[in-house]
Amino acid sequence: MTVKVAVAGASGYAGGEVLRLLLTHPEVEIGAVTAASSAGTPLGQHHPHLAPLADRVVGETTTEALAGHDVVFLALPHGHSAEIAARLGPDVVVIDLGADHRLASAQDWQRWYGGEHTGHWPYGLPELPGARERLRGARRIAVPGCFPTGGTLALAPAFAAGLAKPEATIVAVTGTSGAGRSLKPHLLGSEVMGSASAYGVGGAHRHTPEFIQNLSAVAGRPVAVSFTPVLAPMPRGILTTASTPLATDADAEAVRVAYEKAYAAEPFVQLLPTGAWPTTAATLGSNNVQLQVTVDADAGRLVAVAAIDNLTKGTAGGGVQSMNIALGLQETAGLSTVGVAP
Amino acid sequence: MTVKVAVAGASGYAGGEVLRLLLTHPEVEIGAVTAASSAGTPLGQHHPHLAPLADRVVGETTTEALAGHDVVFLALPHGHSAEIAARLGPDVVVIDLGADHRLASAQDWQRWYGGEHTGHWPYGLPELPGARERLRGARRIAVPGCFPTGGTLALAPAFAAGLAKPEATIVAVTGTSGAGRSLKPHLLGSEVMGSASAYGVGGAHRHTPEFIQNLSAVAGRPVAVSFTPVLAPMPRGILTTASTPLATDADAEAVRVAYEKAYAAEPFVQLLPTGAWPTTAATLGSNNVQLQVTVDADAGRLVAVAAIDNLTKGTAGGGVQSMNIALGLQETAGLSTVGVAP
Amino acid sequence: MTVKVAVAGASGYAGGEVLRLLLTHPEVEIGAVTAASSAGTPLGQHHPHLAPLADRVVGETTTEALAGHDVVFLALPHGHSAEIAARLGPDVVVIDLGADHRLASAQDWQRWYGGEHTGHWPYGLPELPGARERLRGARRIAVPGCFPTGGTLALAPAFAAGLAKPEATIVAVTGTSGAGRSLKPHLLGSEVMGSASAYGVGGAHRHTPEFIQNLSAVAGRPVAVSFTPVLAPMPRGILTTASTPLATDADAEAVRVAYEKAYAAEPFVQLLPTGAWPTTAATLGSNNVQLQVTVDADAGRLVAVAAIDNLTKGTAGGGVQSMNIALGLQETAGLSTVGVAP
Amino acid sequence: MTVKVAVAGASGYAGGEVLRLLLTHPEVEIGAVTAASSAGTPLGQHHPHLAPLADRVVGETTTEALAGHDVVFLALPHGHSAEIAARLGPDVVVIDLGADHRLASAQDWQRWYGGEHTGHWPYGLPELPGARERLRGARRIAVPGCFPTGGTLALAPAFAAGLAKPEATIVAVTGTSGAGRSLKPHLLGSEVMGSASAYGVGGAHRHTPEFIQNLSAVAGRPVAVSFTPVLAPMPRGILTTASTPLATDADAEAVRVAYEKAYAAEPFVQLLPTGAWPTTAATLGSNNVQLQVTVDADAGRLVAVAAIDNLTKGTAGGGVQSMNIALGLQETAGLSTVGVAP
Repeated sequence: MTVKVAVAGASGYAGGEVLRLLLTHPEVEIGAVTAASSAGTPLGQHHPHLAPLADRVVGETTTEALAGHDVVFLALPHGHSAEIAARLGPDVVVIDLGADHRLASAQDWQRWYGGEHTGHWPYGLPELPGARERLRGARRIAVPGCFPTGGTLALAPAFAAGLAKPEATIVAVTGTSGAGRSLKPHLLGSEVMGSASAYGVGGAHRHTPEFIQNLSAVAGRPVAVSFTPVLAPMPRGILTTASTPLATDADAEAVRVAYEKAYAAEPFVQLLPTGAWPTTAATLGSNNVQLQVTVDADAGRLVAVAAIDNLTKGTAGGGVQSMNIALGLQETAGLSTVGVAP
Repeated sequence: MTVKVAVAGASGYAGGEVLRLLLTHPEVEIGAVTAASSAGTPLGQHHPHLAPLADRVVGETTTEALAGHDVVFLALPHGHSAEIAARLGPDVVVIDLGADHRLASAQDWQRWYGGEHTGHWPYGLPELPGARERLRGARRIAVPGCFPTGGTLALAPAFAAGLAKPEATIVAVTGTSGAGRSLKPHLLGSEVMGSASAYGVGGAHRHTPEFIQNLSAVAGRPVAVSFTPVLAPMPRGILTTASTPLATDADAEAVRVAYEKAYAAEPFVQLLPTGAWPTTAATLGSNNVQLQVTVDADAGRLVAVAAIDNLTKGTAGGGVQSMNIALGLQETAGLSTVGVAP
Repeated sequence: MTVKVAVAGASGYAGGEVLRLLLTHPEVEIGAVTAASSAGTPLGQHHPHLAPLADRVVGETTTEALAGHDVVFLALPHGHSAEIAARLGPDVVVIDLGADHRLASAQDWQRWYGGEHTGHWPYGLPELPGARERLRGARRIAVPGCFPTGGTLALAPAFAAGLAKPEATIVAVTGTSGAGRSLKPHLLGSEVMGSASAYGVGGAHRHTPEFIQNLSAVAGRPVAVSFTPVLAPMPRGILTTASTPLATDADAEAVRVAYEKAYAAEPFVQLLPTGAWPTTAATLGSNNVQLQVTVDADAGRLVAVAAIDNLTKGTAGGGVQSMNIALGLQETAGLSTVGVAP
Repeated sequence: MTVKVAVAGASGYAGGEVLRLLLTHPEVEIGAVTAASSAGTPLGQHHPHLAPLADRVVGETTTEALAGHDVVFLALPHGHSAEIAARLGPDVVVIDLGADHRLASAQDWQRWYGGEHTGHWPYGLPELPGARERLRGARRIAVPGCFPTGGTLALAPAFAAGLAKPEATIVAVTGTSGAGRSLKPHLLGSEVMGSASAYGVGGAHRHTPEFIQNLSAVAGRPVAVSFTPVLAPMPRGILTTASTPLATDADAEAVRVAYEKAYAAEPFVQLLPTGAWPTTAATLGSNNVQLQVTVDADAGRLVAVAAIDNLTKGTAGGGVQSMNIALGLQETAGLSTVGVAP
């Protein structure tokens, strides 16, 4: 079986990462590669690391260009996905790397993004309870945000097992590629290197409602989430530290057992041996989630730490994994648990 | 007035930073510069950035070498300060950059460090209520740990004003110099660059009891603290994100007023304008603390973010500031609020 | 065909990179994984990025452990390869990632490394004239040094085409992993980040005779080489800038033609479009060499720039490529031209 | 004496660095702080590290705003300095951090920059033979480019002493701040971190004629210069490696003697002890030049390495140093040889 895949928004970081993964996917043929302002330029100009595609000319993102593909990845600014998807027909697998269809609540959408809410698509975090069932055969998939990927996986087993009170404090340290290729002064290398900074503090980051949606669904009741992202001087990677007040007198070993059970069969979640803690470098370029969890008995909190590559598991890899499930392919096809380090 | 100052442990990062600051201190003459294993080597070999001291030969840390100084800075592994201090006589100002005399509780000391607790010295965080009074004329000073410096200043006004419930979640992103010059594999550049990692998770970091001690003193009752340090790829800087459940219905503006009041007269705490968030780069090499605070109404939490240079305000600069107070010098002498950026 | 491969020196960076590549090699089964001081520990402790091998216990590097393999990679300190190779028997493909068998001249060996010269093995830089012939069927292979890989490929076409006078000035900017995992103060993250430094200046670096050997062979006469390595704050990558006085009045276009001809059929050398210049990030984790060349008419010099990943094409990838040739496998098996970026 | 100083172009990196230095200058009062597009915004928004100036509102760069100052620093895009200088009157000390008045040759100016050549001002590299005489009492000063500062100081003694043949190969590794604050994709943190890249290769960089001008003047005959800049992942610093064919049979010791003689009295040039090599980190924020030189006997070349902070000695610090000389102040006022490290 050969799956023909188009990528819209190919000149950005998310689009580039999709292409990087598809180049090694055994069942995929890369079709149209499109963008907006960079249409007409060679792909090598935007992604010099994708040597086999260096001479491909980026097309314009039009319905015609995207027609005739089995799968279309959308790596677009929010608000553009629904219209394109509508034109592609119901049989095409549309994988939205953007935010448009992540939130179930139209009210949340209005509050955090504004504009019309264009619906809620099956959510591409296969590790969540029931998610694989919803993804199998799906023709529309909303890939999670990079932060909610890490934070949800870090805490879901705790809420699922009833170990946690319904509140969570999540601080996630991210590399700069999460902000995309936009030319903003604070993203210049001169500003970023040697510096850490917080942003979207106080619940102002748009991934907050996605955290709440995910964790509340797992907990079966509303979970209050305090989320703070921190920008760190590295191109890739998210290290999430997440804690929650313990609802039981579970100790570290009991908590570990719950996590082991939750993730025993997951191909892309690696609970590290006791005493080892995740590093983002170990996940670079891989779809792997490195995870560790413990209990702070004095503070009465469960503390979990997760490392992912924000562009792979956090974006493009999560999308490819969901595509594989939707199409009935091997879930791990085109994906790896091996990082590039040091 | 010329103050003659010795530095023991001069070949490490903390010792080097003390020397860097003393070089510009208008009232100080640098006397003995000593160490253990690097005794006999030129200082330029260890601190090539201290050009004016390049040819100074590092002496051995002995009572004789340290005698005859008005002030002695101790930048030593824990457990060594009390004995040296005892030999220096009661009139010498001994400033301990190590952990030995930070904790008031012998029990805490036993639990976190082990070995004999050699007492509690006046605590060199002048911004805490009552601290300046205790530091004036002091001849023994315990300089706070780098993490507690940032985290305590981030939350103290909240607890002092009764805005916070007695618990705090603190995640602090630190540069590598906080770990000193020890040759450990995970501190190699190859491992650190491009990577973020957590350590001492679950209340395992030795700065945890110091946080509790400080915040409980301000709050007037025991405060539970969940502390997680994160190592980030930068040589210097700590970005602390700290949050606490609101005890009142204070909004962001009310919280800001409390912080403004608390720090209005502080020469080294800069509450940023609303909407601006601290970056560690802005404090590089300076004794400045950049601070911002807000309220996450949905989560019911106060969230504060502080940036410091871990070696300056977090170690050596805090020590020099306390020395100035102890000796009745201008508190800001030899210190700056100007960082080196970008 | 399944090739059983052992890796000796598996806990270092070069050994880890060999394992990373072998994990995706379609014809390879990873056999013994051995080391010296880290024998007995799980591989995941040394290479957390190699998730599928995390639980493998590192064996001790003994003749017994390495017996029964088709291929043995040696990632050892210099001086250890010959003895091990002798014990493995003549039919085993021994691929030495170390320096022991790179130099043809025993005198050069003596001068630069000291100790006994244990011979010259077929040199694993397939892109050099005649190299593939020598590698086919070879059972002993000396993988080039990382610097000579970049610098030789940058200048070989110029010397081969008679465009250059017999001297070259090579400055190569390298990431820190080239220095391995040794615990040296100047390799600490705190020292490396934010800093560039030169070392081995004035012809003192051991890769100098290897440059001379390679370029002289191509030129057909002795080439004088001034080589300066520069350590830069990045974990991987070598950016080589190499220049040589023009021997003809060739302009940039004529030079380009010579380079195009030289590398047209090479799977791992990518001459970039005119005006584009190599970046090491584009080669991260790949076996690709990005190359550009031009003429500085005022200075009368040809200037070439090459980017490689020092651990991949510069070490382990070059070794796997040579292994493939020696065994008659697809030369590109287990290797990629796709980097991980940004 | 209080010198009133204005800075035009204050929101960029060069302007910010001038302000950082002036804040500690004992004889200076900072007057107008102006810019173009950022006029009307608080300085703290652009330079959060300059805490004491955070609330200063940036004025517009007009003749009126700059009037009434003793000294005006111009940190402007090239082509704007002459007109502003003309309006300021002949008694004001105008210090041009831009390129406009560095080149003596109108023809060079035309070739490299285009547009009208507005003249050659006294060149602010005091360490060059005769430079201090030209700077004393000067009212117009052209501050050297950052690359020519490092490269000229690295090789001048060799040419002055007749040790070198009239050609030089210079490769300079620079931090990103040298490119200023312009929003270009290749300067984004995501692109820069983990990557080294060359640019302006083949004599295409505009600093090339400035190198030639400087070295030819010292040598007393035309010197051919091959210059290649390399962008490295660090915010500040230039590490220059420079080599030249030996004109004599001088050995390393003889060369060293020439350099010692040349720089013995220089407050900001530090020839390191034999065997020690410069690191850019050691000069961070300082006006110091760290220098080392040796001989590569095999290659017949003298090789020198210099480290500077591109924004300090390479731009703003060089300007302040020249201002001090012009006004008859202590040459080192407001400047330091102490870097901020690690």
